[in-house]
Amino acid sequence: MELLTPEELRAAIRTIADYPKPGVKFRDITTLLRDGRAFHSVVELLARPWLAAGVNRIAGIEARGFILGGALAERLGAGFVPIRKKGKLPHATVRVAYSLEYGLDEMEMHRDAVGAGEDIILVDDLIATGGTALGAVQLLRSLGARVLAGCFIVDLPDLGGAAKLAALGVPMTALVSFPGH
Amino acid sequence: MELLTPEELRAAIRTIADYPKPGVKFRDITTLLRDGRAFHSVVELLARPWLAAGVNRIAGIEARGFILGGALAERLGAGFVPIRKKGKLPHATVRVAYSLEYGLDEMEMHRDAVGAGEDIILVDDLIATGGTALGAVQLLRSLGARVLAGCFIVDLPDLGGAAKLAALGVPMTALVSFPGH
Repeated sequence: MELLTPEELRAAIRTIADYPKPGVKFRDITTLLRDGRAFHSVVELLARPWLAAGVNRIAGIEARGFILGGALAERLGAGFVPIRKKGKLPHATVRVAYSLEYGLDEMEMHRDAVGAGEDIILVDDLIATGGTALGAVQLLRSLGARVLAGCFIVDLPDLGGAAKLAALGVPMTALVSFPGH
Repeated sequence: MELLTPEELRAAIRTIADYPKPGVKFRDITTLLRDGRAFHSVVELLARPWLAAGVNRIAGIEARGFILGGALAERLGAGFVPIRKKGKLPHATVRVAYSLEYGLDEMEMHRDAVGAGEDIILVDDLIATGGTALGAVQLLRSLGARVLAGCFIVDLPDLGGAAKLAALGVPMTALVSFPGH
């Protein structure tokens, strides 16, 4: 299957004006995901640097990060661990507060999701202010895991999340960037 | 990668007593998903009958259905479409009410997620009473799509969901069954 170019991937993302509130341009990746060739291109482009790296597990952030995270786990032969909003995981968890636009929320993962010294790739659909990604790195490191990289479809660089991940020593890959968001 | 047997897959699922309430045995698949070989076995066993079927898209039910659904889409070279709780999709949707243990809730998908005549496989982690699966079939059919099959990791047959899907003419595959749940 021939892969899409970055320009074609960008064109496959739908922009919805004034959603969820006036002035915001929402980058809707569902139009990309529903296209088999576009979806495969994203998985392949994000997986390629890690094919021989012995990645233990993919950590996906609820909910859209589960879609790409599951696909990357399959492509890399890795396990998958979910990072969820609080109260949704049935066993013992570690929990962290993360910042939203207004106030804080909490997310968590199972204490036995990853082990000390394991190599993890963090996956979400989009990185904006980086609140959830930073919280996820904190959770994974609190269990002794190493975060090899953060993989995203979309980066909104003006919101600073990618720079914050870099400051934590986590390399970041995003396939499409929307400066000025 | 050698595939796990059905018995090994069953053993990889953790059972949590009295969760989310007394008397319920919760089947926790996170212990299966985090194991790369178990996760790949699930994807491979569910994908095999459909490798040459020209499946257009995988429809995954929020949130755990996104993990396996994304992986199956990648394995089959198909697109992925999310079926979400109401109010989470940014574009025009179709919506359906579905029954929960107490009362009703609604879920929806984008109107342009699938097209008339397309072949879809429905994916979730577990089928119990079948409320969400039946609602999902209704949504997909309302857009003119054909539901080739429902694919699940776990079936709780005593709760009747699989039988309801069969009554709708949708073949069902589950890899592990817990009679008596």
